[in-house]
Amino acid sequence: MKTLDLNCDMGEGFGVYGAGDDAALLAHVTSANIACGFHAGDPGTMARTVRLAVSHGVAVGAHPGLPDLQGFGRREMALSPDEAYDCVVYQIGALQGVAAAAGTRLAHVKPHGALYNMAARDIRLSEAIARAVRDVDPSLILYALAGSVTVQAARGLGVRVASEVFADRSYQDDGTLTPRRLPGAMITDLGQSVAQVRRMVHEGRVRALSGREIPIEAHTVCLHGDQPGAVEFAVGLRAALSEDGIELRPPSIPA
Amino acid sequence: MKTLDLNCDMGEGFGVYGAGDDAALLAHVTSANIACGFHAGDPGTMARTVRLAVSHGVAVGAHPGLPDLQGFGRREMALSPDEAYDCVVYQIGALQGVAAAAGTRLAHVKPHGALYNMAARDIRLSEAIARAVRDVDPSLILYALAGSVTVQAARGLGVRVASEVFADRSYQDDGTLTPRRLPGAMITDLGQSVAQVRRMVHEGRVRALSGREIPIEAHTVCLHGDQPGAVEFAVGLRAALSEDGIELRPPSIPA
Amino acid sequence: MKTLDLNCDMGEGFGVYGAGDDAALLAHVTSANIACGFHAGDPGTMARTVRLAVSHGVAVGAHPGLPDLQGFGRREMALSPDEAYDCVVYQIGALQGVAAAAGTRLAHVKPHGALYNMAARDIRLSEAIARAVRDVDPSLILYALAGSVTVQAARGLGVRVASEVFADRSYQDDGTLTPRRLPGAMITDLGQSVAQVRRMVHEGRVRALSGREIPIEAHTVCLHGDQPGAVEFAVGLRAALSEDGIELRPPSIPA
Amino acid sequence: MKTLDLNCDMGEGFGVYGAGDDAALLAHVTSANIACGFHAGDPGTMARTVRLAVSHGVAVGAHPGLPDLQGFGRREMALSPDEAYDCVVYQIGALQGVAAAAGTRLAHVKPHGALYNMAARDIRLSEAIARAVRDVDPSLILYALAGSVTVQAARGLGVRVASEVFADRSYQDDGTLTPRRLPGAMITDLGQSVAQVRRMVHEGRVRALSGREIPIEAHTVCLHGDQPGAVEFAVGLRAALSEDGIELRPPSIPA
Repeated sequence: MKTLDLNCDMGEGFGVYGAGDDAALLAHVTSANIACGFHAGDPGTMARTVRLAVSHGVAVGAHPGLPDLQGFGRREMALSPDEAYDCVVYQIGALQGVAAAAGTRLAHVKPHGALYNMAARDIRLSEAIARAVRDVDPSLILYALAGSVTVQAARGLGVRVASEVFADRSYQDDGTLTPRRLPGAMITDLGQSVAQVRRMVHEGRVRALSGREIPIEAHTVCLHGDQPGAVEFAVGLRAALSEDGIELRPPSIPA
Repeated sequence: MKTLDLNCDMGEGFGVYGAGDDAALLAHVTSANIACGFHAGDPGTMARTVRLAVSHGVAVGAHPGLPDLQGFGRREMALSPDEAYDCVVYQIGALQGVAAAAGTRLAHVKPHGALYNMAARDIRLSEAIARAVRDVDPSLILYALAGSVTVQAARGLGVRVASEVFADRSYQDDGTLTPRRLPGAMITDLGQSVAQVRRMVHEGRVRALSGREIPIEAHTVCLHGDQPGAVEFAVGLRAALSEDGIELRPPSIPA
Repeated sequence: MKTLDLNCDMGEGFGVYGAGDDAALLAHVTSANIACGFHAGDPGTMARTVRLAVSHGVAVGAHPGLPDLQGFGRREMALSPDEAYDCVVYQIGALQGVAAAAGTRLAHVKPHGALYNMAARDIRLSEAIARAVRDVDPSLILYALAGSVTVQAARGLGVRVASEVFADRSYQDDGTLTPRRLPGAMITDLGQSVAQVRRMVHEGRVRALSGREIPIEAHTVCLHGDQPGAVEFAVGLRAALSEDGIELRPPSIPA
Repeated sequence: MKTLDLNCDMGEGFGVYGAGDDAALLAHVTSANIACGFHAGDPGTMARTVRLAVSHGVAVGAHPGLPDLQGFGRREMALSPDEAYDCVVYQIGALQGVAAAAGTRLAHVKPHGALYNMAARDIRLSEAIARAVRDVDPSLILYALAGSVTVQAARGLGVRVASEVFADRSYQDDGTLTPRRLPGAMITDLGQSVAQVRRMVHEGRVRALSGREIPIEAHTVCLHGDQPGAVEFAVGLRAALSEDGIELRPPSIPA
């Protein structure tokens, strides 16, 4: 039986500030990426989010970001690989502490925003992140952009890695996502999204914006909680995939 | 054979800023309390400090502080017990991650500055901190001011606790430290410091500033790395205690 | 003709985080207290908020807070008067810069949250804040709790001060606000709020919760933008006061 | 009579952390660039540094940096021009407030570290910074790398700009500084440094590392307070320039 993970960023508030309706989406995803205090998230928000995820039976993972609360971790920063390693180790550890206090354990790590994007095109940065994940806990699974150097770097280091795909974004011929500023970057039609994910899972392929068929590996699908209609989208996607006989659950990646 | 731990705060720099000569003191202490990013310490400094402590065979512990880098965690803040719990959990976890990546484990937790002082007179805050330590890892030992409500709270919750005493501070009749602003607060003579610690370890007593003898429990002695003559002081104290046949090593506190 | 100022906290978001519906309230107040980056507010949010206030013809003032973004400046912190002075000077200056760039000038300063409350009972802290306001720009008006030592400290130093009253809070016999945890602390009925403000303005008196009449000076009324019904409340209050012939505009305090 | 300004970064500590021996260098420079709280500097440090500079008769200027205390503003960050504008406005304003409270005014603005370097090659960023300076106070002089697009952008906007040169760095044929990682980047010989500055001032030329003569405009020389021998270097440079009849004082740039 085919399986697929549905992941979503969560706990991205800070202090008095909330962000997204985590509770609404938790009923529909299988993994939660929880902000760890650098781009968002403070100790209290993290604790509440972990408990909320646990209460929904959703797997929790760390969502480490750049040290840029003002920019929500979305602005690229020239961290050295060593600096990135240290920042990722710290943030995974912090969430592990919160998870332990809540009686649970982390399952995965997904870098956030600019850190994720920079890593996807920089193998040295990817290696630093993959080593950070492995050195803290080798059982953790790193979520990385399908086809990116991050996947390659992690595999090279023997780090478990899950290929992440997008249901609401179109792809380029080289397997990268169409930049948001280009026409056709976003897929807003649910039927088209579902079709894209189905082909990824069943055939290991996606049709690029140019019409060309490219191979892609899909372990986990990223849902965006901060977009209008996110819950409806998740419900629709789940229903379609379940009909297909795809089991929705956290990825199981052998070492 | 009697044992005693010598602990010192370490890794209290931030970014480009250093603080204290950690390497010099590490040759003389048995436990290092490492700042965790709130009052001081950043991921890189933490990693370097853990590795340095490990290379000296010194036990590493977390030194969580208030979220006040500008004030170095020395300004009291009205955190609720829940907020303190979350902050301590987060910081222990972060340093656990760093320790795991360095191939070691934490042995203890010592709250920093205003958090330590506030807890010493507030049993609800002490309970929150003790629960945080226990919930993250019940094998961790909490370092707390000898005779304070923190010791009492930790024992009430079944949390391992080490009574911390001071070699360079005088005591009041109620077992508290003489406030620094009062005359006689500081003990600057090495001989007098050594004598005070010896009596604490051998007789379980200390002579208060008034001359009155009061009972005190001494598992660990706090050395101050940021004071002039800190290394000489540590060397002198070690020599005297070793002559006495006291074994210097991290505390062993049964559950 | 009697005059009264209606003030409201604004620009209390940070980075991607918004807070309150500033635009909705700006149509109804005469002065905006704008967060300056410590408890809330970042350079971009501050700039947008100043421009928005200017476009509504509302006077802008600085709303300096404690350096505690995680706690939104609501947790008391033991800053020394000198530290408070420096923090207030810095924040006023920062917003002055933003205001100058937007082609306007600051009219007032209102400390936020715990800083306001601590000052209201600590004359040395109040003096430090009043000196900070005067030393940056002696034409600025300090907003302070009516009847508090802050008013007294400011007058003693020759600093212009506006007495702030509350429409939605009841008062104690000593002129302080009834703590929120006590019954009767909040006034939720619009008619009752309007009546309270009317008596403050016309008679210089307020009926305390005990029924006792106490004298009170009212230059400005604080509206809370983050409460449900804030806009309706502001509209109702404005209408009633206008009917009374009270001119709503920023306070004019002679030196 | 020719004039030249000697500038140095100052007040780059934070909280308990100091940085550099500001007092020692203040006897030898004519302008101080004071950190404003983003890459370094907190309100207390800023106030002390401004007062110290004033007591030495040294002109004070703002030294705004990227919002990256952990990286000391040395890591490039992808701020948009609007974000850079807002950050620079905020920081100039904050230091203006501190200066006003100390009874003085700012004379100039010099961006710090990565912000300075990014601007030197990005005209849109340079324009944003120049506009920020002008919009807060058009009498302020922007310090910018001689020959860079920042100089060009500032002049295009009618912003007063001082061309900054380096005594301890060699130049490339295109007028840029030789990157530090290349051989010959640093000039460590005092005589050679003095000769380089003399030719810049008297002839408006510098000999590039290749031997080629290139034109350069020199209004101000940057001294590095954090380098060993900084004071001796400053003393030697001052003596040589004074012998030459060059008056050392803050730049006077017509609008």
